[in-house]
Amino acid sequence: MAADVLAAADLRGIDSHGVARLHAYYELLQAKAINPTPDVRIIHETPSTATVDGDNGLGLVVGPKANKIALEKAKAVGSGWVAVQNTNHYGIAGYYPLQAVEQDMIGVSMTNTTKLVAPCFGIERMLGTNPIAVGVPCGKYPPVVLDLATSAVAFGKVEIANRVGATMPEGWCIDKEGKPTTDPKAMMDGGALLPLGSDRDRSSHKGYCLSAWVDIMTAVLSGANWGPFAPPFTLRSGVNATEKRVGKGIGHFFGAWRVDGFRPADEFKAQMDDWVDTFRATKAEPGKKVLIPGDPEREALEERSVSGVPLTEAVVVDLEDISKTIGVPFDRTVFEVDAE
Amino acid sequence: MAADVLAAADLRGIDSHGVARLHAYYELLQAKAINPTPDVRIIHETPSTATVDGDNGLGLVVGPKANKIALEKAKAVGSGWVAVQNTNHYGIAGYYPLQAVEQDMIGVSMTNTTKLVAPCFGIERMLGTNPIAVGVPCGKYPPVVLDLATSAVAFGKVEIANRVGATMPEGWCIDKEGKPTTDPKAMMDGGALLPLGSDRDRSSHKGYCLSAWVDIMTAVLSGANWGPFAPPFTLRSGVNATEKRVGKGIGHFFGAWRVDGFRPADEFKAQMDDWVDTFRATKAEPGKKVLIPGDPEREALEERSVSGVPLTEAVVVDLEDISKTIGVPFDRTVFEVDAE
Repeated sequence: MAADVLAAADLRGIDSHGVARLHAYYELLQAKAINPTPDVRIIHETPSTATVDGDNGLGLVVGPKANKIALEKAKAVGSGWVAVQNTNHYGIAGYYPLQAVEQDMIGVSMTNTTKLVAPCFGIERMLGTNPIAVGVPCGKYPPVVLDLATSAVAFGKVEIANRVGATMPEGWCIDKEGKPTTDPKAMMDGGALLPLGSDRDRSSHKGYCLSAWVDIMTAVLSGANWGPFAPPFTLRSGVNATEKRVGKGIGHFFGAWRVDGFRPADEFKAQMDDWVDTFRATKAEPGKKVLIPGDPEREALEERSVSGVPLTEAVVVDLEDISKTIGVPFDRTVFEVDAE
Repeated sequence: MAADVLAAADLRGIDSHGVARLHAYYELLQAKAINPTPDVRIIHETPSTATVDGDNGLGLVVGPKANKIALEKAKAVGSGWVAVQNTNHYGIAGYYPLQAVEQDMIGVSMTNTTKLVAPCFGIERMLGTNPIAVGVPCGKYPPVVLDLATSAVAFGKVEIANRVGATMPEGWCIDKEGKPTTDPKAMMDGGALLPLGSDRDRSSHKGYCLSAWVDIMTAVLSGANWGPFAPPFTLRSGVNATEKRVGKGIGHFFGAWRVDGFRPADEFKAQMDDWVDTFRATKAEPGKKVLIPGDPEREALEERSVSGVPLTEAVVVDLEDISKTIGVPFDRTVFEVDAE
């Protein structure tokens, strides 16, 4: 299950969330910070809702199991919703709605994450990058999939700027004093990401509201740790650990609406095809085109399904390290072929 | 019902959506562009979902009726979801989740609106300001309520800048050539609002995705007119009318999750109180404080519940005009007292 989630990220071009993270998950399992044999179970439910206890399992395993419960409830009564407590990082948010789309449902997935984002007017980290993902089935076209962190940008973009020594655009970050900064180091050294909208003039209160919504649905509703109390993803990032606990682990929220709970699925999907054609035809800036949500990931999927997934040397070394320690045979040439 | 929705807007300080709009609704009714006696009915349903045909009624009446169906379904099976076709402008999005909150539910409301917003990289109006509102019950504190247009700003802010002859901050609008502009006239003269995020560097693709999501849930799912085909709100704004129709009227989407579908409501509400205290205590910029979603509206509600709702002269003249035409007695002194 975990391999399927990670491979989906790599195939869809989201390198930051694929096997590049395997070593971090592996360390958490080795350190027994994550339960390798979780008893994932429903602790509260109605016909269309449930709360699931992830038993501190890998989010990559708890997530697919909980999402499946949401889809089963939707199949039975038209929509299904599952809040998850006591879980860990679940990979790309967009993986889960794709499971719903396969059954002609509109799927939703959210998760809270360890604090990185300052609220509008705030100057300290209080919320995670708290993504929202939604998948919508089409007819002849691939599904429309949106998958967005509710911060101005994901933390990965700051890390990349730092690695290559670049400055960042204005509106991404503040430093530890709360001052706007374009220096990635200044954010990483106790600063914070800004919410979607960047500043009050451009409505950063809206990004803050959306992030707060995700935090409430995933963590307050499920009984997980919310806001600044969400535990860190990796052992190495213990810097965000906090003494106070207000629940168990981090939280996810999954859901799906059956399209035919509203109108015949074929009718809906034909309209979605028309919707896609209409938006693709939008008059655009010179040299640009208007994309359909999910286009970049689909293009990567098409290319990588044929040519393979390029991995950086650092990731291959990480994989080799895991192989050596646990005794799984490792053939480096496979990776060299893929990386061409 | 309509009066309750409009009064809620005025009491909560959202003057643009209160009785200031009564004359526009009145004109639509007089012109028989809106059906004054709609047969609002369910045309498709499952235990937790339904599609409602608003029979071209006032959104201010169709909305509350459809939202009530969502709440009844949530009461029965844990969550309830209603898509609405063949309806009209429904007032403030935040009105509807407040009905859910009263029953210890988390409520959601969305609507599409006539086109004003360009997609990321686009240079023409394709989407409405498509708001998302969510209400969450607390224990000792008032509910947390978020209510946000998915554009960088609401059109009302452009109108205000135009009225007072001010320039706008960068990141709100483009002109009819698709160039960034700070001149409100340039937007109003065939330009467009930008999605939340403002530009690609600051993630306007995310605002576009959220607006697209609202468009799909409210209009494609219900069988209403989606995207650029959503009809205009007022008779006067016929400039956005289009020949092509892809459904009936505009669309809404309402829903609610029963809190006790996930965990005991008292437990949840106690955690929400702690959540509110925690976020209020965020370290903030000098002279600022971190707000809880819904704070500005609550402050207006407290003040106006005591001192009344200030109306501009133009609105009072509008009300007087309606009174004269339909023969309802009009006492101007009432308004003069309220406006002090």
